[in-house]
Amino acid sequence: MSYAWNSASTRMYRPLLQPDLKLMLAEDDRFGLQQFCEVLNPVIVAEVLQGLDPQSVWRVLASTDIETQAQILEMIEPSQQIELVASIDRQHLSKIIEVMAPDDRVDLLEHMDEEQLESLMPLIAQAERDEIRKLLSYPEDSAGALMTTEYASLPEEISIGEALSRLRQQAPNRETIYYVFVVDTGRRLHGVISLRELIMARPASRLADVMKRDLVSVSVQDNQDDAAKLIARFDLIALPVLDEESRLVGIITHDDILDIVQEEANKDAYLQAGINPLEHSYFSTPLLTIASKRGVWLLFLSMMALVTASVISLLSSQTQSGQTNEPHPSDLHQQLAWFLPLVLASGGNTGSQSATLVIRAMALATMSRRDKYRLAVRELLTGLVLGLGLGLFNWIALQALFGLSPLHAGVVSLTIVMVVTVGSVVGSILPLLFDHLGMDPAIMSNPLIASLSDLFGVFIYYKAATWVHH
Amino acid sequence: MSYAWNSASTRMYRPLLQPDLKLMLAEDDRFGLQQFCEVLNPVIVAEVLQGLDPQSVWRVLASTDIETQAQILEMIEPSQQIELVASIDRQHLSKIIEVMAPDDRVDLLEHMDEEQLESLMPLIAQAERDEIRKLLSYPEDSAGALMTTEYASLPEEISIGEALSRLRQQAPNRETIYYVFVVDTGRRLHGVISLRELIMARPASRLADVMKRDLVSVSVQDNQDDAAKLIARFDLIALPVLDEESRLVGIITHDDILDIVQEEANKDAYLQAGINPLEHSYFSTPLLTIASKRGVWLLFLSMMALVTASVISLLSSQTQSGQTNEPHPSDLHQQLAWFLPLVLASGGNTGSQSATLVIRAMALATMSRRDKYRLAVRELLTGLVLGLGLGLFNWIALQALFGLSPLHAGVVSLTIVMVVTVGSVVGSILPLLFDHLGMDPAIMSNPLIASLSDLFGVFIYYKAATWVHH
Repeated sequence: MSYAWNSASTRMYRPLLQPDLKLMLAEDDRFGLQQFCEVLNPVIVAEVLQGLDPQSVWRVLASTDIETQAQILEMIEPSQQIELVASIDRQHLSKIIEVMAPDDRVDLLEHMDEEQLESLMPLIAQAERDEIRKLLSYPEDSAGALMTTEYASLPEEISIGEALSRLRQQAPNRETIYYVFVVDTGRRLHGVISLRELIMARPASRLADVMKRDLVSVSVQDNQDDAAKLIARFDLIALPVLDEESRLVGIITHDDILDIVQEEANKDAYLQAGINPLEHSYFSTPLLTIASKRGVWLLFLSMMALVTASVISLLSSQTQSGQTNEPHPSDLHQQLAWFLPLVLASGGNTGSQSATLVIRAMALATMSRRDKYRLAVRELLTGLVLGLGLGLFNWIALQALFGLSPLHAGVVSLTIVMVVTVGSVVGSILPLLFDHLGMDPAIMSNPLIASLSDLFGVFIYYKAATWVHH
Repeated sequence: MSYAWNSASTRMYRPLLQPDLKLMLAEDDRFGLQQFCEVLNPVIVAEVLQGLDPQSVWRVLASTDIETQAQILEMIEPSQQIELVASIDRQHLSKIIEVMAPDDRVDLLEHMDEEQLESLMPLIAQAERDEIRKLLSYPEDSAGALMTTEYASLPEEISIGEALSRLRQQAPNRETIYYVFVVDTGRRLHGVISLRELIMARPASRLADVMKRDLVSVSVQDNQDDAAKLIARFDLIALPVLDEESRLVGIITHDDILDIVQEEANKDAYLQAGINPLEHSYFSTPLLTIASKRGVWLLFLSMMALVTASVISLLSSQTQSGQTNEPHPSDLHQQLAWFLPLVLASGGNTGSQSATLVIRAMALATMSRRDKYRLAVRELLTGLVLGLGLGLFNWIALQALFGLSPLHAGVVSLTIVMVVTVGSVVGSILPLLFDHLGMDPAIMSNPLIASLSDLFGVFIYYKAATWVHH
């Protein structure tokens, strides 16, 4: 990858260029489309294509050669890639896949369903097919699944001059040539030399005398996280990956690690807020998928809060046994306290989830005003879905486990519906507001959202109880 | 940076090599010490030196030349760097600082106090001094403060052959030569060419004909975060930094961005859990500093919970006004519910803070068993400090604001001390336990820690109340 496009900031190109592109499509301006594909950086092309229907994207891509199509497809995000591969004939797709970078191609194929994959594989050339099957066989989080097989390698007995001329021939098809791996005929790794050291060394020296022999590597089976730690610790551009017999089979490059570090940070942040990690970005994950990834945890936490409620119901009757009579189970005021932690946790937890999703979504991408609006609407809807689900669950549980009347269980459940919905909206809007004001959205911390939600929650809860009581 | 040292994993070298090193120091084995400094990768040398007293570190470093000393010092973490610079004569220190990489040197000087800095600066050579003053003048989070001034640059009118031979001369003193920036005599940036493109181009071509003219850059004043976003988006090895007059003044390299992305992820995670971001790593931050960075938020959240308590006290008296008399303020059972959110939030918030600190500390470093033990003890102590602080604050607040008796306020406050301490311990031990069992520690999410803390909290709270009542 190298530079292209003049940009002093991280502004988005889509709003700027998509209208032009649509005009070119409407006018069937083939030359314009070709220029669009070939002059701009593939990263930017992919960004501008975002949100376009698959047929239009393929019309744009058809204006250029197969290599450029592959480069652009590599940069398109997974959910749109899947749409695209489903709407093109397999013959053409197999040609593109053959010229894609091995690591990007495996990423794409991993996202396709079994059936699609099996109908596509026979069309791909034998050599690429074998390599794909091999890379697909590595576990999802392993170094093997992340590596590319396009590394630069040389034998150790040649001279520096010879090495440089051989490297020139390899260069076009290699992910990086800045680290050159020195291997024997059995592909066993003997050393490494950087291109910087190569061009500084005397041309007559032997490679074996100049290369470094001690080196850092990972095994195909190692976790991607371990590879990230090594690259970060030693500031590497590429890390060699060895198979079980210590043969060099691939490299992991610095840019892939940046993605891994970000994904890990997202995964940790999601889990920390009780959200099962999303596989794609927030916006390319369907609303109901997000709701289910949050819902399982909220449901589990509701069950924990019901245990807490039963502890309170048990202990609070002991506390006051000395002063008044045993509370009657229909005594609403008494019961309000039992379920207070349940109600408040529901709102606080949902709010924390929303805040985390918003803050992570803003962490490494710039959001347009439209994205922010869309986000708030999505969180409102997700909150409603989660609130209704949790409310219904608790309405049944409170009657079954605590013998509450449908009306009294309804007060608690309706409050849950409301605090969950409001929690979700407040949890997403406050960080957006802070960002808008130029402040760090992360200051709107989970406990702060939870405490605001608590305040709202007790208000609704006791108001609803008063209303039912009269 | 390049490879050195054979490692198939992220294991730590300190336990392995520090005993040998201490033996060499005891025996004054100068040759052994020199080998240690010069054969191993500076990253590993710095790691092994960690925890050694400053005098011993300087004795080790004295065995090698000033350049190697600088390289090792660059890799030592900030808190130990500060110890080291305080215990060496300024004359020697100024020599080391002159040969350090400009970005690492500024990082070090930024951490020194004003007085130290002013006594050191006159000893540094004029050229380096001017550069240091310039880099120090950029705001802390700006691209200018992160960049290095050691980039490779060439004029555009020369041939590729000439470019390669000039680059060979620049190479030893440049952070990277993989991107070469093409500038005019006014240092205005005209284009960029990668070393890969350089060695693939015909030697007779003119640089101006081969270089790319569209390029991505940031301004010295831009946020480091923006630089990170650009490097991540375009998979760059280096990003040029321009001053206000669009002159090239430095570059930001891919490895610095990895640090920024991690720091940002940590900062977000800390803030999300209500912890003001730490400047150094968890272990090199004093316990009381951590306690204060957590305490301010806990105190603020306590105040919010007191507002919630007053809302409950107000509304719950309305709820039951129909059925019984107004509750008397000394009615303990009644008041328990008012302060339930306060008590539970104190435990939950502290537990979330601890879990977040532990999970982030494990996210990009491998922890030894000793580190884990130390962490648990630190969290117990921090929990006690925070618990006592919050307990005392609330004991006074409950009497002053709600008219509670010292005994009844004591029940609430004592429960707070206990849930905060237990929350801190549980919040740190459960992620460590999950990690130990080979599971993802982040599954021990903040809401899960909070719900466990709730369960424990209500138990203690109502038990204490029962005990006081009898």
